[in-house]
Amino acid sequence: MKIYIGVIGGASCQEEVEREAYEVGLEIARRGAWLVCGGLAGVMNAAAKGASDGGGFSIGILPSEDRTGASPYLEVSIPTGIGFARNLIVVLSADAVIAIDGESGTLSEIGYALRYNKPVIGLHTWNLTSYTGRCANIITADNPKHAVDLAIKAARGNF
Amino acid sequence: MKIYIGVIGGASCQEEVEREAYEVGLEIARRGAWLVCGGLAGVMNAAAKGASDGGGFSIGILPSEDRTGASPYLEVSIPTGIGFARNLIVVLSADAVIAIDGESGTLSEIGYALRYNKPVIGLHTWNLTSYTGRCANIITADNPKHAVDLAIKAARGNF
Amino acid sequence: MKIYIGVIGGASCQEEVEREAYEVGLEIARRGAWLVCGGLAGVMNAAAKGASDGGGFSIGILPSEDRTGASPYLEVSIPTGIGFARNLIVVLSADAVIAIDGESGTLSEIGYALRYNKPVIGLHTWNLTSYTGRCANIITADNPKHAVDLAIKAARGNF
Amino acid sequence: MKIYIGVIGGASCQEEVEREAYEVGLEIARRGAWLVCGGLAGVMNAAAKGASDGGGFSIGILPSEDRTGASPYLEVSIPTGIGFARNLIVVLSADAVIAIDGESGTLSEIGYALRYNKPVIGLHTWNLTSYTGRCANIITADNPKHAVDLAIKAARGNF
Repeated sequence: MKIYIGVIGGASCQEEVEREAYEVGLEIARRGAWLVCGGLAGVMNAAAKGASDGGGFSIGILPSEDRTGASPYLEVSIPTGIGFARNLIVVLSADAVIAIDGESGTLSEIGYALRYNKPVIGLHTWNLTSYTGRCANIITADNPKHAVDLAIKAARGNF
Repeated sequence: MKIYIGVIGGASCQEEVEREAYEVGLEIARRGAWLVCGGLAGVMNAAAKGASDGGGFSIGILPSEDRTGASPYLEVSIPTGIGFARNLIVVLSADAVIAIDGESGTLSEIGYALRYNKPVIGLHTWNLTSYTGRCANIITADNPKHAVDLAIKAARGNF
Repeated sequence: MKIYIGVIGGASCQEEVEREAYEVGLEIARRGAWLVCGGLAGVMNAAAKGASDGGGFSIGILPSEDRTGASPYLEVSIPTGIGFARNLIVVLSADAVIAIDGESGTLSEIGYALRYNKPVIGLHTWNLTSYTGRCANIITADNPKHAVDLAIKAARGNF
Repeated sequence: MKIYIGVIGGASCQEEVEREAYEVGLEIARRGAWLVCGGLAGVMNAAAKGASDGGGFSIGILPSEDRTGASPYLEVSIPTGIGFARNLIVVLSADAVIAIDGESGTLSEIGYALRYNKPVIGLHTWNLTSYTGRCANIITADNPKHAVDLAIKAARGNF
């Protein structure tokens, strides 16, 4: 059975972040897992490019009604027409999620992932602490390879 | 660029309808197109089985929050968690749609397809006439092969 | 407990249809029920205006991310941001649905209503017949007053 | 024009948090604004009860396909049938959002609110810091009255 690894992060990001996302996608491909993401630019496109270069397979869940603006590195793209409510679908499709950097949209995805007990691996992403000082259950990764390693282990633990 | 053909129809249906759905899936695979459907039983499962037997590729857009109940013949399954609002996504992901038999859920999908000017091919499906006597823009097919032929031609016309 | 009556129909329609929608809204208000609709122009706006003139209460479920384009006759407007997937919400919010005239979007709403066993009252709307000749379960109304009467009776039967 | 204040927070919470949510709802009512929430138990129900006791008006956007489980203190309840994708709708319906305490679902709503530049007032809620040390744009309130005061001011600034 295929493992789906979600990659979440902003549609615009710095070059350094794109490099990390690319490495994450490449490693997901090397490990034989499938990548699922929001299908647009920035982190999503860089990760899909990495997966493509690694001979992998990427699925993009798009907010729009058609495929305009989709990353060219996706094998499968799904125009949902439901806007950013599609963030829920990215998360539900993944067995584990890697959050890279990220803006507010990423935050909504992390929230959904935690809500559904999906393992969340953080790579230079948000620090989330509740009012009582409890940290959100995000597993910190040191680098792209480490992130994918943790994600695949956690995803397997889900089966 | 891949052509996505949507197959819509009920989750429970008679054997004869399943046979037609199977033939439709098989023919979609033979023609090298991708099949997208709602991912559950009945017409959806039969079409995905046909595509699988033909060496094709099927994508299922599920209403539920996880993959429970998904057809085992899908290559990619997407749990949306948005219930039957996912009917919109099945339609938007398709370049043309083949409606086979069908209950009320299928009607909502035909409505969406017409709304977005997606070609709709009907195979023993609903007859829809407006109050003023105007027929809905459904192209009638005589048999599964004919349906796929019409769908692929119409999908190409969309590019 | 409040009864919610859904009014579904096209965003653009002929004057005669708007007059009927207005009468339907007026009668819903007179009967003390609440009106729920898609919140935009055409049938939706005319029905909301009728309800407003009758001292009633209208709720609009909008496809867009903000309230731009909403009918000014709504008391409550809900921007959903999920596009035409919001058609499902209009239907689920209603105890019974009145379909007036209508284009393809209305067809998707009728499909959803039948899917969820919501009573559907038709006023000069679609004729829907399955392949085997079975008519969809739409109750035909002769005029706006009759439509509201049938809808409220059917909605009460739902409790 | 009515101001809609969103109240977001967990479906299960401690008594102290419920008391704060109640006070927030009461104050929203006193200030003549409308309350919009997820319509279920915990923070949502307590806030709706407060609004009800203050003579106010509450709207609940439910995840389910019907009204089962809705707070009895809502004036309007909207069953969406789209599960937790409805979190987006709660946020888009609000001119400003008050986050009280909160679990992971609340986090997804805060993410959406920031994504759409909705003012977010935090009352004993999440601390969110990006990797670079930048705090998320949440306005901290000292107590329920203060939270409503800040929310209404921010909502007015949005017009």
